[in-house]
Amino acid sequence: MSAVTTIVTGTHQVPSTMRAARMHDYNQPLVLEEVPTPGIGPGEVLVRVQAAGMCRTDVQLVDGYFRKYAPFSLPLIPGHEIAGEIVQVGSAVETGGHREGDQVVVVGGWGDGTCRQCHRGDTQICAHGAWPGFGPYGGYAEYVPVPATYVIKVNAQAGLTPEQLAPLTDAGLTPYRGIKKLRDAGALGPGRVVGVMGVGALGTYAVQYAKLLGGGATVVAFARNADKLDVARRLGADHAINISGRSLDDVRAELRQATGQDEIDAGIDCAGATEMIRLGFGLLGIAGHYVSVGLVGDRIDIPLFPLVSKEYTYHGSFWGNYNDLSEVVTLAEQGKVRHTVHAIPFEDVNDAIDRIRTGEIVGRAVITY
Amino acid sequence: MSAVTTIVTGTHQVPSTMRAARMHDYNQPLVLEEVPTPGIGPGEVLVRVQAAGMCRTDVQLVDGYFRKYAPFSLPLIPGHEIAGEIVQVGSAVETGGHREGDQVVVVGGWGDGTCRQCHRGDTQICAHGAWPGFGPYGGYAEYVPVPATYVIKVNAQAGLTPEQLAPLTDAGLTPYRGIKKLRDAGALGPGRVVGVMGVGALGTYAVQYAKLLGGGATVVAFARNADKLDVARRLGADHAINISGRSLDDVRAELRQATGQDEIDAGIDCAGATEMIRLGFGLLGIAGHYVSVGLVGDRIDIPLFPLVSKEYTYHGSFWGNYNDLSEVVTLAEQGKVRHTVHAIPFEDVNDAIDRIRTGEIVGRAVITY
Amino acid sequence: MSAVTTIVTGTHQVPSTMRAARMHDYNQPLVLEEVPTPGIGPGEVLVRVQAAGMCRTDVQLVDGYFRKYAPFSLPLIPGHEIAGEIVQVGSAVETGGHREGDQVVVVGGWGDGTCRQCHRGDTQICAHGAWPGFGPYGGYAEYVPVPATYVIKVNAQAGLTPEQLAPLTDAGLTPYRGIKKLRDAGALGPGRVVGVMGVGALGTYAVQYAKLLGGGATVVAFARNADKLDVARRLGADHAINISGRSLDDVRAELRQATGQDEIDAGIDCAGATEMIRLGFGLLGIAGHYVSVGLVGDRIDIPLFPLVSKEYTYHGSFWGNYNDLSEVVTLAEQGKVRHTVHAIPFEDVNDAIDRIRTGEIVGRAVITY
Amino acid sequence: MSAVTTIVTGTHQVPSTMRAARMHDYNQPLVLEEVPTPGIGPGEVLVRVQAAGMCRTDVQLVDGYFRKYAPFSLPLIPGHEIAGEIVQVGSAVETGGHREGDQVVVVGGWGDGTCRQCHRGDTQICAHGAWPGFGPYGGYAEYVPVPATYVIKVNAQAGLTPEQLAPLTDAGLTPYRGIKKLRDAGALGPGRVVGVMGVGALGTYAVQYAKLLGGGATVVAFARNADKLDVARRLGADHAINISGRSLDDVRAELRQATGQDEIDAGIDCAGATEMIRLGFGLLGIAGHYVSVGLVGDRIDIPLFPLVSKEYTYHGSFWGNYNDLSEVVTLAEQGKVRHTVHAIPFEDVNDAIDRIRTGEIVGRAVITY
Repeated sequence: MSAVTTIVTGTHQVPSTMRAARMHDYNQPLVLEEVPTPGIGPGEVLVRVQAAGMCRTDVQLVDGYFRKYAPFSLPLIPGHEIAGEIVQVGSAVETGGHREGDQVVVVGGWGDGTCRQCHRGDTQICAHGAWPGFGPYGGYAEYVPVPATYVIKVNAQAGLTPEQLAPLTDAGLTPYRGIKKLRDAGALGPGRVVGVMGVGALGTYAVQYAKLLGGGATVVAFARNADKLDVARRLGADHAINISGRSLDDVRAELRQATGQDEIDAGIDCAGATEMIRLGFGLLGIAGHYVSVGLVGDRIDIPLFPLVSKEYTYHGSFWGNYNDLSEVVTLAEQGKVRHTVHAIPFEDVNDAIDRIRTGEIVGRAVITY
Repeated sequence: MSAVTTIVTGTHQVPSTMRAARMHDYNQPLVLEEVPTPGIGPGEVLVRVQAAGMCRTDVQLVDGYFRKYAPFSLPLIPGHEIAGEIVQVGSAVETGGHREGDQVVVVGGWGDGTCRQCHRGDTQICAHGAWPGFGPYGGYAEYVPVPATYVIKVNAQAGLTPEQLAPLTDAGLTPYRGIKKLRDAGALGPGRVVGVMGVGALGTYAVQYAKLLGGGATVVAFARNADKLDVARRLGADHAINISGRSLDDVRAELRQATGQDEIDAGIDCAGATEMIRLGFGLLGIAGHYVSVGLVGDRIDIPLFPLVSKEYTYHGSFWGNYNDLSEVVTLAEQGKVRHTVHAIPFEDVNDAIDRIRTGEIVGRAVITY
Repeated sequence: MSAVTTIVTGTHQVPSTMRAARMHDYNQPLVLEEVPTPGIGPGEVLVRVQAAGMCRTDVQLVDGYFRKYAPFSLPLIPGHEIAGEIVQVGSAVETGGHREGDQVVVVGGWGDGTCRQCHRGDTQICAHGAWPGFGPYGGYAEYVPVPATYVIKVNAQAGLTPEQLAPLTDAGLTPYRGIKKLRDAGALGPGRVVGVMGVGALGTYAVQYAKLLGGGATVVAFARNADKLDVARRLGADHAINISGRSLDDVRAELRQATGQDEIDAGIDCAGATEMIRLGFGLLGIAGHYVSVGLVGDRIDIPLFPLVSKEYTYHGSFWGNYNDLSEVVTLAEQGKVRHTVHAIPFEDVNDAIDRIRTGEIVGRAVITY
Repeated sequence: MSAVTTIVTGTHQVPSTMRAARMHDYNQPLVLEEVPTPGIGPGEVLVRVQAAGMCRTDVQLVDGYFRKYAPFSLPLIPGHEIAGEIVQVGSAVETGGHREGDQVVVVGGWGDGTCRQCHRGDTQICAHGAWPGFGPYGGYAEYVPVPATYVIKVNAQAGLTPEQLAPLTDAGLTPYRGIKKLRDAGALGPGRVVGVMGVGALGTYAVQYAKLLGGGATVVAFARNADKLDVARRLGADHAINISGRSLDDVRAELRQATGQDEIDAGIDCAGATEMIRLGFGLLGIAGHYVSVGLVGDRIDIPLFPLVSKEYTYHGSFWGNYNDLSEVVTLAEQGKVRHTVHAIPFEDVNDAIDRIRTGEIVGRAVITY
């Protein structure tokens, strides 16, 4: 994906080395070090990273969550939520007219371009894909090479900061695709109740998309943390229910009081814990749709009979593709998305990882340089 | 649902009592006894049962599987797969022109007619619905009252026997709806591999629908029993794989040898055992769709990460609605469905229940009178 | 549909005659006269009409537009947009629990209950259907018999007036279904431009639904009348373009100035004039969806090549079904719909017909008694 | 799209000039001449054309049909249905592993890779796309440069000839996409009647796909030519109706006799003549879907009221994308498609154009070298 020779040099002076926070081993702090700045291939651009979102996935990467699913070569540079500026353009890049100085965000799921998924644009689920932040280069460094086809230019006049833009590429993208799946399945609309399960970084966006795409649906956020429920309300949730230590029946009762019905018609799971999934399905009404985007846990353990007899549909939804991110950026440019971000100085990255692990950060942590 | 006054009497002499196999208690043999023949309400017809399919669900009913989900008043008459002849027509029945002597099959899921599901025709998932065979009247008796709107007239010239028709209303209907969900989701078509998981009564139909609706897809049956795999092959499965005692890797290897790929693109689970569901998802490829119609087990226990990162969609599908059954009957009338049925004399119903419980019957057992 | 014997009489004293505006011949004023109050059949309710919307279709009915498509027996009572109060309940009505005194709206498309369309809830396109207002009874009279299954109870606490409710059953329903078709086809969403072609009564609702269901889409109204364009803006249209006497190129130029693109991604045609349809398709971008709900004209005359090579999809959408109207009523109960109605005293019905014919009324005319 | 420098030369000796049939002016015979063999760019492959389908579109191109929609630089080489062998591979081609000697077919609609359509794989409707056969290079010459991403390798062991393969890329692809649209819209299935309107080259495939994807639907071909109707029957049409000189009522009557209903539930228009489209819609039943792929005429002129009140859906469908063609090739490799081709020696191309214009060729004419 990356390459060895720098082809075109523009006005920006690319230094020969850059600061990077690299993962040398599992369950260890990242090492903040100076490493060679990557060159780019003919079809790539070099992006100067202005902001890099810190995803829970990055913490899981460090903690070894993905080890059983995919092997990674170490050291690697985490960081797949990237906003920045193009500072070099590969020799073969012409289409789309990327130019040095363009403000861009990076589409993170890069496909091999040959499979059925790629040929319908879903490069993020390509069987032979690649991602920034899971290999030699990522957003936890000052520069990252990106295939030109995977950057989206942002309208500079919209006044969005890199800190706002970076999280849109995953935290702000992943629930968007999930909510679209619910909408396209016909699960949203007037008189429907939509549950947003979990109000971490993804949930703060999910609440907003549920309102924007819900077609009049009532949006209810479910979380264990009062601060996060407050955030959900501020972002437009019609109701917010604290599920900490409460039984399914209790939650149902509060839901009925809030909405007039003790079931949700659709749900988006931004958490992923086994208990949250069980709660979500426990609340789900007939012909309900549920979409999982959160990956905190790794086990689905629910009864079969309701899924069959109530004709549930359970959607997995992963990240987003180019068109999805274009739509998210458009919403942001139009001022229709509110951001909940915390700037993290590059030096504090390991500290931030610890705080993400415990779930104490509300909204998205974003590294700045 | 049933009613007290018999309104119209035709040429058929309806006797005052009828033979019935009734369930008086859980985990007990049915009691074969003479009981009063039911009358019908103004909107109902009386159907003389000519054949009644014996569903695994009936066995689960006896065994108490549904106790935690729904209370039933005992005694009840099982039997929701019903083919017969109309012998009485209620006074208010006009629409559709049902007449005495009509050969009919019974749509089993009766809705309350007022909810969102009913108003789009999915009466079988109405929250306040009723079913024959789970209350005072059912197919395990000589007569059954049915709301006129839930009988479908069969073309007498098509030459179908009641024994063939009865199973179409559930065993032949349920996988049809399931396969339609896969088709409508875009999961079938040329170059796709579709797995039929389990070749009980439902599976024998699923194999055929996967061919009929598959649009050129390759159909692979998976089961633990060589006889059932033979049946699957005879009914059109392109391949049949014995999974008894074999690892996921072994099954994948045989699948690759058979089809050129070690994954299925879509699957229909006609079993419902936790292990079968796990196997099905273990085989499922990227963007794969899986539909559960079987209810042998009652636990879904699968990993979350593949569901999300491969964007699986998991559909629950329950029985079928009026239009679904109309389509199945049309297929049968056109000779496009092959039947695998075993006639069971009414007297042997308890013996047959035992044999269904152990899974030794290939195809569908059907009570005749 | 209607019947002869009144079964149950409640507290409301139903008089033996009622005021009605009846159509005795084509192209003639309606005759305001006293006629016998209809009785109801066992499955019907009698609705005291509190408000009846005056639809352009009523004018077309008088003018003979439908003569070539359907024969009508005269005299007839027009009026298919009905809000009122239940004053009698038929003897066989139980389901859903309709009661005298209930405030209701009437679902206008009544099916035969036996066909494929009815069995999926689309009774309004049943081949053997019936409608109030196109036969002996309709909203242009004080009482109307309605099959109990076709009334929807309105939450009295929502504070909606009959004048607001009546138009929801057609003017407020028809574009809702049309917009839903666009949404379900994936034609709406962030960055999309949706055109509302024509801002008559339907258009005033279409603008709002395009915002509500548009998922962030930009909504542009097109009309020939400055007053109507103002209404569109007040109801939430992002832009409104006057097309009177302007070429396609002119309209495109203004569209580009307003939205940044000179094409619409989707359109809803609330007019139906041949020129409007041609304009709509002339503006339509690649993979665009267009839905016709308006019936002012009766000719589609557009070039084939763009439809094929740009892969347009052209949807016909007719009125709405029970669930559609339920959703519209829910939106109104939640205060999410704004109404543009003009109360017309019963005596002025013929005058109002003339003014509707010339298109001078902004919003919906509604007869009150 | 093409480029100037030949990068890699393989074992095949590419000559410096090649035979080509070039269009120098509208309404003139093509000029058979020797022209320079094209070089390829770094991302392209050079395909030695072994067979080139002669599309009616090519005739329309010569006749000036597209002049008003798109300007073309002359001279040009027609021919967009191409099967052949890779003889050179560009320096930057790696993905997908194309090699010299590979037997391939060419995906004809090449997108710019940056727009919404391209990003979901529908490159054939890219607003800034290109096509072989409508510019300097095409299938009516011995060599053609093709972007590597637009060739699909064919399994050599399937035994398909270039003459069979070439038409699959348009005549065999276009109706496939059209039928898929009908299927995905839920318009096909048991008990449905599907009309194939016109049995030219596209129609011969459409009949087969209607059977393959129809899920048990009854397929009826409509054409004016007895020979073509015979072909349709041989290819699997359940019925074939001659419409030459017959009224809509006559055609309806014959349809009823053949199928039991006088309407079609879905139709694919492989012709495009105004009268054929009018006939198709005249036959279309409630909630019917109609897809146009044929372009013989250029005017849609149908009544509006049935489209709205019967809720028709009219789909434009253009050519096909990469995945569509992959599926078609898979069907052909599996022996599920029958071919109706006529080999045309290169020298006879102008004579064949005349015969295609008059519609006298049954099936597809294919140039061989």
